[in-house]
Formats: sequence, C-alpha cells, structure tokens
Amino acid sequence: MILYNGPTSPFGRLARAVALELDLSVQERTIDVYTAEFLDAINPLRQIPTLVLDDGAPVYDSRVICRHFDALAGRRLLPEAAGVDVERRWSLAMGIMEAGLQRRMETVRPDGEKSVAVIDKLAARIRRALGALEKEAGIVEAVGVRMDTLAIAVALEYTDFRFTRDWRNACPRLAHWLEAFGQRPCLLATRPRETQTA
Amino acid sequence: MILYNGPTSPFGRLARAVALELDLSVQERTIDVYTAEFLDAINPLRQIPTLVLDDGAPVYDSRVICRHFDALAGRRLLPEAAGVDVERRWSLAMGIMEAGLQRRMETVRPDGEKSVAVIDKLAARIRRALGALEKEAGIVEAVGVRMDTLAIAVALEYTDFRFTRDWRNACPRLAHWLEAFGQRPCLLATRPRETQTA
Repeated sequence: MILYNGPTSPFGRLARAVALELDLSVQERTIDVYTAEFLDAINPLRQIPTLVLDDGAPVYDSRVICRHFDALAGRRLLPEAAGVDVERRWSLAMGIMEAGLQRRMETVRPDGEKSVAVIDKLAARIRRALGALEKEAGIVEAVGVRMDTLAIAVALEYTDFRFTRDWRNACPRLAHWLEAFGQRPCLLATRPRETQTA
Repeated sequence: MILYNGPTSPFGRLARAVALELDLSVQERTIDVYTAEFLDAINPLRQIPTLVLDDGAPVYDSRVICRHFDALAGRRLLPEAAGVDVERRWSLAMGIMEAGLQRRMETVRPDGEKSVAVIDKLAARIRRALGALEKEAGIVEAVGVRMDTLAIAVALEYTDFRFTRDWRNACPRLAHWLEAFGQRPCLLATRPRETQTA
C-alpha cells in the first residue's frame, strides 16, 4: 500500500500513526499537495492523505483510511463493542484538527483576503472543543490506545504546532496525559516537522 | 432522538434523508447555528447536524450520525459486505459538499476578505470530483439506495443549489440518474429551501 501524505497534515499524521500502531506495511510518500497534479487521477479532491491499495484502488479520506487500516488489523482501534461515543470523540478530535488547519490557512492569507473574525471564530471553536475534551479526561486516561485517543493526541499536538501551547492551562489533565501518551512510538515517529510549511 | 439541523446544510440534509430512508423516529429541530449558543454544551464544535440520543448522549458529526442511524436499522445502507469502495465514494460526495459549502462561504465574504483564488480552486475541485463520479456512473446506476448513492444525490443537488446546474453537460449519466433517484421521498422531503440563507 502507498500512503500519499504531507509533512504537516494532522489528518495524514493520524493515518500514518494508525498504520504504525497496527504494524501494517505501508509505504509513505510525502508530497506537496499544492503542486501534485498527478494526485487528481487518484483522488479528484486532491487531498492528503490518500491511500492506494495493492490492487491500485484509491482510499480516502483520512477517516476511511484509518477505518480500513483497522479492519485489516482485525478492528483493534475501533473494536465492535466500542460504540458510538468513540466515534463521536474521534470526530471531536477531527474537528479540532480541521479548525486548526482552517485557522492556519486563514492566518497565511495575504492582506485584503484575511478575516480576523474567521480567525477568532476558529480559535474559539478550538478552545471550546479542548475544554469539552478536558471534561472527558477520565475516559481518555483510562482507555489506552484506541482511535479516539490517538486522534486526540494528534489534535493536541497540532494545536501546539499551529496555534498555541497555552491550552494546557485550561486542560491540565489532558496535558498530563499527553506527556506520557505522546511518547508512543507511532506518535514520536510522526511529529510534524517545524521546518516545513503548510 | 433529536436532530439539530439547519435549513440548507448538505450534511444535515444527508443525515435527515438517511433517517427518513430508514424510517427511524427522529425529531428534527431547525436552528440558526450562528446564534445557537445552547449547542456549544452539546457539540462544542457548534456544527450541524448534531444528534441527541434518547439518553441525552450527543452524536456528531454527520458521518457518525449516518453510521449510527444505519446501525440502529441493521446496516441497510452500509452493509457489512459493502467494502471500502462505498466508504470512499461516500467520502468523495462529502468532499463535493464540503467544497461547495466552503465556496459559498467564500463568495459571501465582504470585499477585502474575499479570495478569488480560493473560490476558483474550490470550483475546480468540485468539477474534478463530479467528473470522476461520472466515470463511476455505471456503479451508481446499478446500486440502488445505499449510503454512497444518497450522498451523491445530496452532493449533486447541493451543487445545483449553491454553485451551478451546468455540471450536467460534463456528467450526462449522473444527470439522468438523478432525475429518477431524486424522486425518492427522503430526498423530496429534504430539498434545501431557496428562501433561506447560509
């Protein structure tokens, strides 16, 4: 399998981390999605991550990729009994990543195309969502590795990378949890690279 | 169950259409998400659709809601055997909706905050994705009602609603398919209302 990925995409990071956690054989190719016209024929949305299976079939978006990886490995990160609350918490983490990415893209727009209101709205959304996650810290701490906790770790570290580290003041339990959980090899190996852009 | 929804959200429309198709008892409440501060306590991302289960547990986002509805009904729209390609096609339809919504939001920004490049990029993404779907028209025509075909119908009609009807020139088979498929009661009952905004 080939995973087309970017250097800093939180969605791509989660897919890669899931593959590593599940010990799947996936070849990663880091591309610049802004110039990767070849990707249009595989994923017409031209978004990363995009997976290509051994038979050439494309798989996207990141949630479909993560779910497929987990199915290949026997549903270890989304066990049958996990229930809708795991999916909801995964979705909440994805929403934090999405707001973080949108906020970042807004901040790098040229003057005359930038909206301070949009930036503020997205920042407020991230802070609200992190505050809500802090209230679920007891579950997060107890669960161990699962799709929702991996996604939460990626969301928190993407917030560090593109927005702020000061969420720790409002979320001391999540901050403490991340110190240990963030040491998992699949997370250490995929941390976004500060020297790259976008 | 209560489904908080908006008048024109394609994601909300799909969730509502899925509930109707599966004949589930869901109470819909149409809200203005921009002023619905009460929603923050249920879904801190403040996004629609948001579902509240009978026991008060929140469910989001729309994909999690649709999947949950289908699980309640015995996996009729996402049968176990459906495989990853159905998920991929559902995701492609969601990408068209997402690009359509982002494009719409960009077009209604005030002067001085608007990016023509962003609008053009999103329009190109929509057209590429529709062109790719047209190549899968044979599958779409043969499948009948399933999660991917419902999502494709919603994506096509959202494109009509917010962008253009001229995609039919490049996608004659999808256009012909939609004429019949769009008559399903769950789609007729949920068509976006032209008199509302956002």
